Amino acid sequence: MSKVEEVINAVLKKVRPSAVERKAVNRVVSEVLSRIKNVASRLGFEVEVRVEGSIAKDTWISGDRDIDVFIRLPKEIGREGLESIGLRIAREAAGDKWIECYAEHPYVEAEIYGFTVDLVPCFMVSSAEEATSAVDRTPFHTDYINSHLSGELKDEVRLLKQFMKGIDVYGAEVKVQGFSGYLCELLILHYKSFIRVLEAAAYDWKPYSTVIDIENYYADSDEPLALFKAPLVVVDPVDKRRNVAAALSLQKMCEFIAASKAFIKSPDLKFFYPPPIMPLNIDEVLREIEKRGTDFVFIVTRCPKASPDVLWGQFYKSVEGIRRLLEVYDFKVIDCAVWSDESKYLIFMFELESACLPALEKHLGPPVYSREHSERFIEKYLEVVAPIAGPKIEGDRWVVYLKRKYFNACDLIGEKLLEARLGKLVYSELSRGFQIMLNEEVSEIYRDLRDFAVFFTRYLFGKPRWLL
Amino acid sequence: MSKVEEVINAVLKKVRPSAVERKAVNRVVSEVLSRIKNVASRLGFEVEVRVEGSIAKDTWISGDRDIDVFIRLPKEIGREGLESIGLRIAREAAGDKWIECYAEHPYVEAEIYGFTVDLVPCFMVSSAEEATSAVDRTPFHTDYINSHLSGELKDEVRLLKQFMKGIDVYGAEVKVQGFSGYLCELLILHYKSFIRVLEAAAYDWKPYSTVIDIENYYADSDEPLALFKAPLVVVDPVDKRRNVAAALSLQKMCEFIAASKAFIKSPDLKFFYPPPIMPLNIDEVLREIEKRGTDFVFIVTRCPKASPDVLWGQFYKSVEGIRRLLEVYDFKVIDCAVWSDESKYLIFMFELESACLPALEKHLGPPVYSREHSERFIEKYLEVVAPIAGPKIEGDRWVVYLKRKYFNACDLIGEKLLEARLGKLVYSELSRGFQIMLNEEVSEIYRDLRDFAVFFTRYLFGKPRWLL
Repeated sequence: MSKVEEVINAVLKKVRPSAVERKAVNRVVSEVLSRIKNVASRLGFEVEVRVEGSIAKDTWISGDRDIDVFIRLPKEIGREGLESIGLRIAREAAGDKWIECYAEHPYVEAEIYGFTVDLVPCFMVSSAEEATSAVDRTPFHTDYINSHLSGELKDEVRLLKQFMKGIDVYGAEVKVQGFSGYLCELLILHYKSFIRVLEAAAYDWKPYSTVIDIENYYADSDEPLALFKAPLVVVDPVDKRRNVAAALSLQKMCEFIAASKAFIKSPDLKFFYPPPIMPLNIDEVLREIEKRGTDFVFIVTRCPKASPDVLWGQFYKSVEGIRRLLEVYDFKVIDCAVWSDESKYLIFMFELESACLPALEKHLGPPVYSREHSERFIEKYLEVVAPIAGPKIEGDRWVVYLKRKYFNACDLIGEKLLEARLGKLVYSELSRGFQIMLNEEVSEIYRDLRDFAVFFTRYLFGKPRWLL
Repeated sequence: MSKVEEVINAVLKKVRPSAVERKAVNRVVSEVLSRIKNVASRLGFEVEVRVEGSIAKDTWISGDRDIDVFIRLPKEIGREGLESIGLRIAREAAGDKWIECYAEHPYVEAEIYGFTVDLVPCFMVSSAEEATSAVDRTPFHTDYINSHLSGELKDEVRLLKQFMKGIDVYGAEVKVQGFSGYLCELLILHYKSFIRVLEAAAYDWKPYSTVIDIENYYADSDEPLALFKAPLVVVDPVDKRRNVAAALSLQKMCEFIAASKAFIKSPDLKFFYPPPIMPLNIDEVLREIEKRGTDFVFIVTRCPKASPDVLWGQFYKSVEGIRRLLEVYDFKVIDCAVWSDESKYLIFMFELESACLPALEKHLGPPVYSREHSERFIEKYLEVVAPIAGPKIEGDRWVVYLKRKYFNACDLIGEKLLEARLGKLVYSELSRGFQIMLNEEVSEIYRDLRDFAVFFTRYLFGKPRWLL
């Protein structure tokens, strides 16, 4: 048996749900279905109830505890009806332990016999093109996969999903910007096996030029590439106007490409089940920062209240906005990142070449032969603004050396942070208060928040786990 | 009387040689001429002796102590004859105090009655085009000016020269790269007065597009501009293939333009006679460096032996070479300069944003989808070179964070200085030894060398003196 087969067999043993597990899932599913039907008929509504997601498609991985149940209501009841009737049914069927959530649609997340069951009201539409949201489209995806994906290929999907989880590219949520479950299923459908998906990614995929069009909706790849402008284009078999890989970032696509190459070269279980990250102790962290000779600036604030997708959209936008602020004032940002527990803490992190710039900065003026400008320039810097040195002539231009307004990154952030391009909710929190921490000042936070410690340790290693 | 006239009249009083002074000069000149003739006839050679330069053209400034006397020999005696016979005559006519010098030609510099008299052997040629060196061409310049420049205009030349001295743009030597005396005379000839030269410079001159062609050798300015490719083109009236302003740098041309504008706007004696620079004391210097927040690196070595033009050519080339070395290794050079007393000391000076870089540097690798390269890259940075962080993926590329080889500018210079692009003589001296000084380490040198202290004080002010 080859090393690949060996690894794959070992993974298959882990990802295939056992008979006992299937039974447990089925029990929860039928319980939920009957609860919903009872509630609906008691309330006098006729609804269609369907299990969706990986359970419905039999592509779930052993140990998954998520079940999606869709409550399909006639379109005529409208958005309001959906929210009042649909949610009422969901709530009453949910049992004791549930919360109401809101993504594109409102839904109920219940805990039933140790499973997380999403009870999702949606409209009954006759085709995916009619769908007004991802939720309405889901049943068509389920149907498509169930009618096209053969039994043998379901294990291949499980392998691919577990591989993607192991290398941290699984999940289409904003935080991850990776591969959705449906995208994994389509990749298997197209390439016919886990290993062939990896081979294609390793050898053929190239960002912004790869198109997968299972139903051959488009004659060649030019049209979908122009239409979708995404790193990877996978035309939705149930709706040709949709790119199933729309949420996939260049970063995650490339991480998948690189990991695929690496796996093919030396197959290993660690791609599927990477070793856990043990956070460094704080002394090691401080030594590491010292060794790099760079400066770490942390901005710590409270996490706003919103759904994870909304939060992470704002976090990513804000971290780029703050990076831009630093760069506009000449600080060299080596890298930046954002961490949040999605409830209490939000921490922006910037690694700078240096948090201190020289006090002096060179400011180029007009060419000396430009009559009006050079006169104004000299007047300004002789009479209005007192430069550190100059005005002087360098080559054919006037220059002055000015005192930099912000030569300390922490001062800049302290005064200008709210002028950065920030997400609205992040702006609100920051305007209520934040703390700036430089290098070792992060020690207390690092000691208190283990998840943050793991995050920062990973950043310091800076390696994908499959390379560790 | 307008302010301009007032200033000009005051300057004229100072720059016009007095009757007493003229008499003294004439006495020296006739003494030297008769000495040369006696020596030549004693040796059995017939030579033509001519006074050249500003004395011959009556454009010298009161107080000038330089007299040029040319000993013209028949072309037939050749280079060797020129050096044996010509120099012998010069030496024997020089009196007690003289040194032999060598620029393009060998000549003798004598001190006679307090004047510096250059005794210059040269060939008798019948036209400037025949000249094999600047020295052979000089008599034609003298003749041209004497036959074209009227008596009234000679004072205008004196004003222009003194103005250029005052603003530090006078002199065509390599160190200055400014305006020669002959160039001043031609500018007056062309524009007819001191003030009109300044107006032209202030309002009309533009680097690389201004041509002055007194004899109208060229139909338009395109041909000479293409031919000479210099900031300013002044076609030599005695040789159309020569640009009299060839030695003028963009920097000095622009300083003249800027000073001309400033003088026209507010005429002042200080343009002609700027206040002397009083060097700061060393504590003030150190406070100033502190205030700027930058780092000053000085490289101190012995000055090579050569003529000033050779030296400064090599100094400027070397300072640029060292700047390049620093920049290649990521140091940000704000400005650099070189100082030398042309005999003992040579000091290169670099003002850096910081003499210390972070230990860590980001190194971009290949795109992850580039098959061969990315494999080699990962192998290299996993197995051969141990990076501080990575390899990791950023966007579609591999990156690693490496330990910088040189994060201290002084270390870099200490190890790599001789690999910079240096002048040959400078290389020789540096290979025999140099000292690197950072910031306050320059104190002793600063205290000991007053000229260097003046130079560095001027650098720190960074203003032309007419703006002080």
